[in-house]
Amino acid sequence: MLEGVPDPFATALSVNSIQTGLRVLDIVGTVAFAMSGALLGVRKRFDLFGVLVLGCVTAVGGGAIRDTLTGNTPPLFLRDETYLWLAILGSLLAFAIGTRLARFERAIRVFDTLGLALFAATGAIGALRLGLGPLGVTFAGTLSGVGGGIIRDLLAHEVPEVLYRRDQLYATAAAAGALTVYLLNGHMSSLGQELCGAAVVVLARIVSRRGWVKLPVRRV
Amino acid sequence: MLEGVPDPFATALSVNSIQTGLRVLDIVGTVAFAMSGALLGVRKRFDLFGVLVLGCVTAVGGGAIRDTLTGNTPPLFLRDETYLWLAILGSLLAFAIGTRLARFERAIRVFDTLGLALFAATGAIGALRLGLGPLGVTFAGTLSGVGGGIIRDLLAHEVPEVLYRRDQLYATAAAAGALTVYLLNGHMSSLGQELCGAAVVVLARIVSRRGWVKLPVRRV
Amino acid sequence: MLEGVPDPFATALSVNSIQTGLRVLDIVGTVAFAMSGALLGVRKRFDLFGVLVLGCVTAVGGGAIRDTLTGNTPPLFLRDETYLWLAILGSLLAFAIGTRLARFERAIRVFDTLGLALFAATGAIGALRLGLGPLGVTFAGTLSGVGGGIIRDLLAHEVPEVLYRRDQLYATAAAAGALTVYLLNGHMSSLGQELCGAAVVVLARIVSRRGWVKLPVRRV
Repeated sequence: MLEGVPDPFATALSVNSIQTGLRVLDIVGTVAFAMSGALLGVRKRFDLFGVLVLGCVTAVGGGAIRDTLTGNTPPLFLRDETYLWLAILGSLLAFAIGTRLARFERAIRVFDTLGLALFAATGAIGALRLGLGPLGVTFAGTLSGVGGGIIRDLLAHEVPEVLYRRDQLYATAAAAGALTVYLLNGHMSSLGQELCGAAVVVLARIVSRRGWVKLPVRRV
Repeated sequence: MLEGVPDPFATALSVNSIQTGLRVLDIVGTVAFAMSGALLGVRKRFDLFGVLVLGCVTAVGGGAIRDTLTGNTPPLFLRDETYLWLAILGSLLAFAIGTRLARFERAIRVFDTLGLALFAATGAIGALRLGLGPLGVTFAGTLSGVGGGIIRDLLAHEVPEVLYRRDQLYATAAAAGALTVYLLNGHMSSLGQELCGAAVVVLARIVSRRGWVKLPVRRV
Repeated sequence: MLEGVPDPFATALSVNSIQTGLRVLDIVGTVAFAMSGALLGVRKRFDLFGVLVLGCVTAVGGGAIRDTLTGNTPPLFLRDETYLWLAILGSLLAFAIGTRLARFERAIRVFDTLGLALFAATGAIGALRLGLGPLGVTFAGTLSGVGGGIIRDLLAHEVPEVLYRRDQLYATAAAAGALTVYLLNGHMSSLGQELCGAAVVVLARIVSRRGWVKLPVRRV
């Protein structure tokens, strides 16, 4: 689906290096999300296979939602086995280091933010190539970013964190990144758009963690 | 998908006015469902963005399920931005009037019933155009009607209301409306089928609210 | 979708008898899963329609996930009404015999295992025909096997049994069966692959019920 679409902004960089760059980012996001899912499984005392399933579903869930919504079936993660291998790898890693993960909690949070940022940006780019408008691109990008985490929380019978994490921007950050990708369309290459979109997500997360921005809650 | 299919029963009315009629009904249903979703978010003390997400997902969820099941991807709500704009509008409205919604509870219930009726009927018409049989049309219509509400309740970590609202017909009403659309096929235009189907849903809801009909529960 | 793909291993048996065999197995699995879903609905005191919905969704959910993931839309259960009729039949049966089902608990468990085995195997065969690799086939087969049960548990607001049933292999058994189908590809007909894959699932369930195999749980 993504191949064969001419990218007029790719002339400055070789198309190959852009594709490689996008792919490396995708891979980092996949492993990061797999680790966050597997970690929740370990905490909930799932057995090894349950941990693997939760890690894999978290890693590929957002992309599966994106591809299903955009009619890009079978989803990329089924066609390209790399993603599932990486998800298994990340899950096993999380299972293996288990107890010591508390020490790495900060690293995990960094990875989770990276995954959110990269999936939101790739989802937005996929939606752009379908010719969707600003809201469609933002919606598809946000769902790609937060979809894996929502499925993870539903399967683990947890309250979906994305809607309750009141003190921080999370889905809002993903939406801002996806919108950035849309607004930059036509001004730079896909890789550039993706990097800028992802950067906006990371920035929004950092800013909100420091407590500089809060969304209103309606009193009832 | 829906365009280009000749409608031999549209001769009495101009095709344009039928299309316009179907669209107006779709829009009313979307806003109604967005308000019901956003209201639940306000009650659960989500922040502004959480309320928006819940409102939008409730509004477009049923249609997304319908379009994904019928291979009509990307779903209509991504291709036509009107739906998401309306969902955002309805959600913001619910957020804004917040506390005073209790007074409007009856209005909300009316809108929810309208949304259920209209989505069940459009879902059934979409399934008819794929050439599905009676059960397929009923199933697809029911899912379109209740799908948004189920996703809303899952995301808000509530028991899906549709299965537990024992004192009233809800999914049953949607199924009756979808079946009506199927049975009327060939006897009137799409708009006529949709209106009759939706009317059956509304009627079933009214009848069951008055306690005239109850479904059996199996003693265990 | 499944038609039209030449099956070079079908020469020993007539293509017709293979198709018939696959279909009979599919039908048994559908009824078995419908009964398991309807039974949960009866236990949770849903009304008649809620029991029907839960039974049908459990019966067709795994196949719907499989067909949506593999781009085979509209899903088979919408195109071929037999499946929904069978799901309704199984659900009504479970509703009718209600209280006496406790006596049949063992039969139900046998049916559930059969359903798991057969859906995992047909899911794997569907994925094979798309040309997916070992992980993709295993993932798609596992999801087809356990998907209906996961949707059932989510709708009934239960902890998804598949991830928590710690003393027994469940999803692991489905994965082993799907992988078996992949490994046997090219060595026998589709029907043979399906039967062997399903046999592996049943075997894994029996072995794990006797407590001979346990998956590790990570201490935290």
